[in-house]
Amino acid sequence: MTMQTTTTQPQSPVAPARGTRRPLGQTEVRITGGFWGERQDVNGRRTLAHIEGKLESEGWLGNFDLAAAGALPDGRRGREFSDSEVYKYLEALAWEIGRTGDPALEERFRAVVTRVAAAQEADGYLNTRFGRPGQAARWSALEWGHELYCLGHLFQAAVARARTRPEADDGLLGIARRAADLVCREFGADGRDAICGHAEVEVGLAELSRVTGDRRYLDQARLFVERHGHGKLGDIEWGRGYFQDDVPVRDAEVLRGHAVRANYLSAGAADVAVDTDDDALLAALRRQWDRTVARRTYITGGQGSHHQDEAFGEDWELPADRAYSETCAGVGSIMFTWRLLLADGGARYADLIERTLYNVIATSPAPDGCAFYYANTLHQRVPGIPADPGAVSPRASSSMRAPWFEVSCCPPNVARTLASLDAYIATADADGIQLHQYAPSTIRTALADGRTVAFDVETRYPADGAIRVVHRTDAAPQAPWTLSLRVPSWASGARLRVETADGVEEREVEPGVTAVRRAFRSGDVVELHLPMAPRLTTPDARIDGARGCVAVERGPEVLALESVDLAPAGVDDVGLVALVPGTKPVERDGRGWVEVVRLAAEDAEWPYRDAGGDRAPVGRAVVPLVPYHEWAQRGPSTMRVWIPTAS
Amino acid sequence: MTMQTTTTQPQSPVAPARGTRRPLGQTEVRITGGFWGERQDVNGRRTLAHIEGKLESEGWLGNFDLAAAGALPDGRRGREFSDSEVYKYLEALAWEIGRTGDPALEERFRAVVTRVAAAQEADGYLNTRFGRPGQAARWSALEWGHELYCLGHLFQAAVARARTRPEADDGLLGIARRAADLVCREFGADGRDAICGHAEVEVGLAELSRVTGDRRYLDQARLFVERHGHGKLGDIEWGRGYFQDDVPVRDAEVLRGHAVRANYLSAGAADVAVDTDDDALLAALRRQWDRTVARRTYITGGQGSHHQDEAFGEDWELPADRAYSETCAGVGSIMFTWRLLLADGGARYADLIERTLYNVIATSPAPDGCAFYYANTLHQRVPGIPADPGAVSPRASSSMRAPWFEVSCCPPNVARTLASLDAYIATADADGIQLHQYAPSTIRTALADGRTVAFDVETRYPADGAIRVVHRTDAAPQAPWTLSLRVPSWASGARLRVETADGVEEREVEPGVTAVRRAFRSGDVVELHLPMAPRLTTPDARIDGARGCVAVERGPEVLALESVDLAPAGVDDVGLVALVPGTKPVERDGRGWVEVVRLAAEDAEWPYRDAGGDRAPVGRAVVPLVPYHEWAQRGPSTMRVWIPTAS
Repeated sequence: MTMQTTTTQPQSPVAPARGTRRPLGQTEVRITGGFWGERQDVNGRRTLAHIEGKLESEGWLGNFDLAAAGALPDGRRGREFSDSEVYKYLEALAWEIGRTGDPALEERFRAVVTRVAAAQEADGYLNTRFGRPGQAARWSALEWGHELYCLGHLFQAAVARARTRPEADDGLLGIARRAADLVCREFGADGRDAICGHAEVEVGLAELSRVTGDRRYLDQARLFVERHGHGKLGDIEWGRGYFQDDVPVRDAEVLRGHAVRANYLSAGAADVAVDTDDDALLAALRRQWDRTVARRTYITGGQGSHHQDEAFGEDWELPADRAYSETCAGVGSIMFTWRLLLADGGARYADLIERTLYNVIATSPAPDGCAFYYANTLHQRVPGIPADPGAVSPRASSSMRAPWFEVSCCPPNVARTLASLDAYIATADADGIQLHQYAPSTIRTALADGRTVAFDVETRYPADGAIRVVHRTDAAPQAPWTLSLRVPSWASGARLRVETADGVEEREVEPGVTAVRRAFRSGDVVELHLPMAPRLTTPDARIDGARGCVAVERGPEVLALESVDLAPAGVDDVGLVALVPGTKPVERDGRGWVEVVRLAAEDAEWPYRDAGGDRAPVGRAVVPLVPYHEWAQRGPSTMRVWIPTAS
Repeated sequence: MTMQTTTTQPQSPVAPARGTRRPLGQTEVRITGGFWGERQDVNGRRTLAHIEGKLESEGWLGNFDLAAAGALPDGRRGREFSDSEVYKYLEALAWEIGRTGDPALEERFRAVVTRVAAAQEADGYLNTRFGRPGQAARWSALEWGHELYCLGHLFQAAVARARTRPEADDGLLGIARRAADLVCREFGADGRDAICGHAEVEVGLAELSRVTGDRRYLDQARLFVERHGHGKLGDIEWGRGYFQDDVPVRDAEVLRGHAVRANYLSAGAADVAVDTDDDALLAALRRQWDRTVARRTYITGGQGSHHQDEAFGEDWELPADRAYSETCAGVGSIMFTWRLLLADGGARYADLIERTLYNVIATSPAPDGCAFYYANTLHQRVPGIPADPGAVSPRASSSMRAPWFEVSCCPPNVARTLASLDAYIATADADGIQLHQYAPSTIRTALADGRTVAFDVETRYPADGAIRVVHRTDAAPQAPWTLSLRVPSWASGARLRVETADGVEEREVEPGVTAVRRAFRSGDVVELHLPMAPRLTTPDARIDGARGCVAVERGPEVLALESVDLAPAGVDDVGLVALVPGTKPVERDGRGWVEVVRLAAEDAEWPYRDAGGDRAPVGRAVVPLVPYHEWAQRGPSTMRVWIPTAS
């Protein structure tokens, strides 16, 4: 056992011990603007302060002060998992400090850590909800208590801090280690044979092991992963599948149960599989990912079709109007998927991450970064109700974006994802660099042989489809290396153009990965042109909730029909006739246009009739669509992603 | 105020003070066999004993003994509303005794009443969950405590007993009156300005007023009805619409929120509207019924599309695979709808009741009467799990029919509906008799002018469509009177045949009501022939969950495609080509046959594609359908009501 911190880790949320791809961290990739740069800016300037304000005003930070003062349980506020929001906020701050070095954020980070530290007990235990006189005993409510879940988020925060400020003396890593040591004593091979009802500690422990070099944490993560599926938790109304405690991870065929829990567990299991060379476990996770993506994922990348238990439905159970598609399930899906990408490579993983980023992560926050969607429906049947800016909303109401929730996991989860987003852009392998996501960015890193390579990505993507990689390696010509670019699965007809001192080459490239191997010199340009015309997409016929409908996509963005563009007709009273071919002005504002037939809105007394009772057409119109992530930004509206085709 | 019991009330669950139709009770109508007679027989022989066994073994009856012994709250078992299941069981027993006079049931009834009586407190309060040292205070948890809800069921039980055994000395009516008097003191105009989170006390009080002639109970029911919609209950995650406390009853446009609560409240409001001559309130209820039936009701008559809050969805939100369609919401819908029928007449009301009886009420119980569906999905994607006969199931699991539930409202609710079903067959008005439901039955009643009329209904309906009314009035010819028969809305092409001493007349009759006015003599026969060939039904295009599909109906029965008839294909891997015209043997077993194309079941990696990705057909087959109410009786299976059409 060693206390030494590994300082050579990438400044990145995931640092596997092995794998086909090495993640490039914040010191190597920097997003410089554009779609994601703007959102990172709002996140840093507005969202983080908004979150701390709510953690303070709701008393969730104050719970730590009460704990330190011996004043709990009286006055404790918030749900049983409220500590975890403080930790996710710390993680977001750590990444943001790593990204920008903002001294004001550094000060806030240290102030919060000081308050957390004061609440930790002598033996390492840390939770404001359990274990004191008048509270339930430690570990006495594993199904719903979220104690280990909260610690998992503490570990992830400490890992983020250790990777971004390895020399800092704030003490967060020590807090995490003392808590992790306690977890290993309590839940080790000779301890309680138990798991937490909400997976998260697994991924936290595995990453803490990577940061500290302490193998015990990895072993403990592996124990927790392996214990799932053996009925260690009590049965509940929705069955143990809710907790992923129905089938062992290595035997499961598909993600099921609570969608956030399922993805967090899969991420932790992937870390364990990679770091313990457990190829069978990794293969099981790949298989589950495949079927989950093929049968249980919305076109937005969103996951989870049940409101009741925030859970995956059965295969093909993807109703648009009852889509839950929790924002945090999107975060969890990116965590899991990114780990498979690092292990295996494969454009499909980056495809899903891109889809989820543009259509779940970008959809949740309002433009001002101070209100969020908790759930992300694909069909709003009645206009949402504007949320009271001062109020705390129930977790997934029918309101518009809300500033805070009783269960408020999505604001800090979005914040930590945006703050660390630079680290999801590119990876390296022995032979070169792989670009997975396209944003204006600068990339400076060392190849496996130690050579430095540098290039800038210049693009207005997804406003248009040109992605220009300009090499900036100021050095004498070197040996060739490979620059790989992902061609998204939807990008049939993409073209690649390589412009060097030797001339210009241009060719069509297939969806998947395209590579250019060359001794790049400063000034060499590799340009990928992705076709950005809006396109019609048809759902698999087994998705009952979208049968007879099409969606319109444009690049990585799913588009939506919103009632404000359709009045006085409603979104349920039109049939799609055709996509209107895009023109340059249309493409410039990121919209598509469709021709629709308007249908009479009157009722029958009984809505089930002999065949042939179609509603009468009452007119035609050409209407614009908006990117789904922009919906409900122009006041209350109804909305559809899946638009019925005119019969 | 009078203590005198009105003994002239019909032996029927509803006895309005006015209305266009007078219900004929158990003394006037007797079902003698057939589809419903068999189910009543199973209910009386098996279900009632099954329920009492569970009430005993689960301790819900024992709670009353503990209360009487002063031993509560220690050892109290069951949920906060478990008392109500005892009262619904008493109501079911009362109707069954009224129907059959079974002395063994009479003995059980009295034994249970004795135990309930012993638990009533001196001031009339009766609830095993509240008000004692160590329990929450009386009326301290109106949102979720169900105290008034439980009393509403007590009142309905007492009303059933008073109407079926008006001279009985068991004391149940006195228990109910003492409790109702307490409710009036506590919640009267000068009392707590509050309502119960689960409507039911309204309908119970209104009916108790009818039985006792005590106007105070009606006034109290009216107060409770009028208080709804003014935010008297606390706000909850799903909004106050869940309790119908969002909009006043007379202002609402549609049923919303919890589907059982909404229907029970509407039934109580209808009683209040009728008995207080409040035509505006009655008109509001009619309007709500109209829109609820036009936009928020499944083809089965089932209501409620949300699992999460057991609630109605928005208009057109009727997903088949997530249909909740709670059995008790079907019971509540019949309660509400029957009251509108009595107030207004109108074949539409009886149409919906018939649809709900055959496709919700008949679906819930297993053939042996000892297992039930709590929720009634219209699309089972994975085979259900057989329920453990000894276990208590969560309220709406994915199991097959289960013997008992933690929330076990459906078994006694089905039982009381079946035991009182004779009273839903026919009504009388000043001019004659109206037949609303068709079952083998004998009818003997007095017209408004005092004349006795008698006839038998002979039919195998719905096995076939011939309904034969044979007059048995053994008297000299009398003045003419009108026999009305409902022609169901689906029965285009129905024929009416009248055979008397004067000869035979036969004619086609339109859906709605057909009437024969005549001085009927014994031996006269009126015969209605309903077309029973299976028929294709198309959903309104706004019902996203059924778009591109058809259902097959046969008479009043919705049919279903079950995987046991389709193996090895699954119900999600076929497209319907055509209905196969019925032949006599086909019709005899109550089934329809359809030709389907079998589709390849393989996946794409991603289920959203460019247009044109239909699955390949791999064969054709002609397969039988079963009545929906018979599904899952041949072992675990998957099932669809809405079958996609072959493209």
